[in-house]
Amino acid sequence: MKIAIIGVGLIGGSMALKLKKNGFTNFVYGVDLDENHLSEAKELGIIDEISSLENAVKNADLIIIAIPVDAAKKILPTVLDLINENQTVMDAGSTKLGIVNAVKNHPKRNRFVAFHPMWGTENSGPKSATSESFEGKAAVICDREYSAEDAISTVQKLGENLGMNLLYMNAEDHDIHTAYISHISHITSYALANTVLEKEREEDTIFQLASTGFSSTVRLAKSHPEMWVPIFKQNKENVLDVLNEHITQLRKFKSALEKENYEYLEELIRNANRIRGILK
Amino acid sequence: MKIAIIGVGLIGGSMALKLKKNGFTNFVYGVDLDENHLSEAKELGIIDEISSLENAVKNADLIIIAIPVDAAKKILPTVLDLINENQTVMDAGSTKLGIVNAVKNHPKRNRFVAFHPMWGTENSGPKSATSESFEGKAAVICDREYSAEDAISTVQKLGENLGMNLLYMNAEDHDIHTAYISHISHITSYALANTVLEKEREEDTIFQLASTGFSSTVRLAKSHPEMWVPIFKQNKENVLDVLNEHITQLRKFKSALEKENYEYLEELIRNANRIRGILK
Repeated sequence: MKIAIIGVGLIGGSMALKLKKNGFTNFVYGVDLDENHLSEAKELGIIDEISSLENAVKNADLIIIAIPVDAAKKILPTVLDLINENQTVMDAGSTKLGIVNAVKNHPKRNRFVAFHPMWGTENSGPKSATSESFEGKAAVICDREYSAEDAISTVQKLGENLGMNLLYMNAEDHDIHTAYISHISHITSYALANTVLEKEREEDTIFQLASTGFSSTVRLAKSHPEMWVPIFKQNKENVLDVLNEHITQLRKFKSALEKENYEYLEELIRNANRIRGILK
Repeated sequence: MKIAIIGVGLIGGSMALKLKKNGFTNFVYGVDLDENHLSEAKELGIIDEISSLENAVKNADLIIIAIPVDAAKKILPTVLDLINENQTVMDAGSTKLGIVNAVKNHPKRNRFVAFHPMWGTENSGPKSATSESFEGKAAVICDREYSAEDAISTVQKLGENLGMNLLYMNAEDHDIHTAYISHISHITSYALANTVLEKEREEDTIFQLASTGFSSTVRLAKSHPEMWVPIFKQNKENVLDVLNEHITQLRKFKSALEKENYEYLEELIRNANRIRGILK
């Protein structure tokens, strides 16, 4: 199977590496606006050919769109315009309602599969790609009833080849759940980094004292705005909803401390500890 | 050198394992209120003898107090009462002003060294202890001018044997810095866990969708209240100060989203990205 990867970054690159390794594909076209990323991807063996969008879409059996969600939403109708009834298109974005709505009435809507692999790091670019990135992680296929059976089947096989656990839900539910489970984590991490940078003017002290706990909670704050602003924009209502809840929860800690109500503080912590039973 | 470990948990246990391994000590007395922890520690080779407090303190050259900070503050004067001028006592707590004030006027104050190894995990107990835990991490010695030269030298050697990078500051500054860099991370993580548990009633969905990013930011929420309530209590003012700043920072994200001011959102994220240059 020939694949076109639109966006040869962390996600597209990691997919290509694994899918080439286990023979799911024998040829990968790479499309990207960033010339450096293209040549790096070629050098790293992620792609076999640097290509124009038109050429890649024309020749590939499966087209994977792995670019920021605003750009993905914009490019998808164009890609669908270019394909025939035997080709499949999928995305890899962290929001889903925006992109499915963008092609709701497209005559080739059924060739598109809305896909979200639940993995990422704070790094980006083809140099960060690794072949085992997705192993054991969850992937969500949204609104499967709007996709052709054979297109779903192709993406299922891709998911299995990546070693992912496939889940199915509608795009609206997906965006609600990911606001809770993924998007809010990034906002708290950004805000935590800004808090520390505001309060701790001595950068050396941050660097010297940074514990593993701090590094772990602040890791996501290294993630780029090019990827995350469009996600927050597309999932604004859900993210705001969960952000308001998060501020409410933080205020409970504030209140417990201000009132020196340490029994309440303990209760709040014991409740949070329940996450241990859920996440192992 | 003979060592007494008061509190054979994650921290005390990890120290003992490493210090025995590299020959810094040839005999470790274990003291703990938890009988199970004591027998586990004995079985795991962390301690050589289960002992009473009095016996351990009487016979050890170095006494390490590695229990929650409220209990440490309470027990330290008793330990100092029991020792002679050749023995050294150190703690391993995450707050420092409370404990140094508790022995400010003690006649044997100079035998005590206030120590804080900047490492920990969300797990506890001797079974979680590992010998290489502290390697490459920071450790802070506070108010060194109130400790005898030879006591400081003993603790410095211990720090070097654990492979730690030693830093020196006064207890007040320590508590301010750790509020920013360690304590607030735990509150945000607890509040994030409570947010998700409040909004996402389907625990299966949390488990299935949990991305690496979420797991990373919520990891600290598994930490026990027995350890953390006393830390927040002793460092209340500093923690409240940084918690207020954190809520202010989160409100900026809320405002940017509500007003759909995506340039401002990008600016907030770019500022947070500066942490990459500091933490690598």
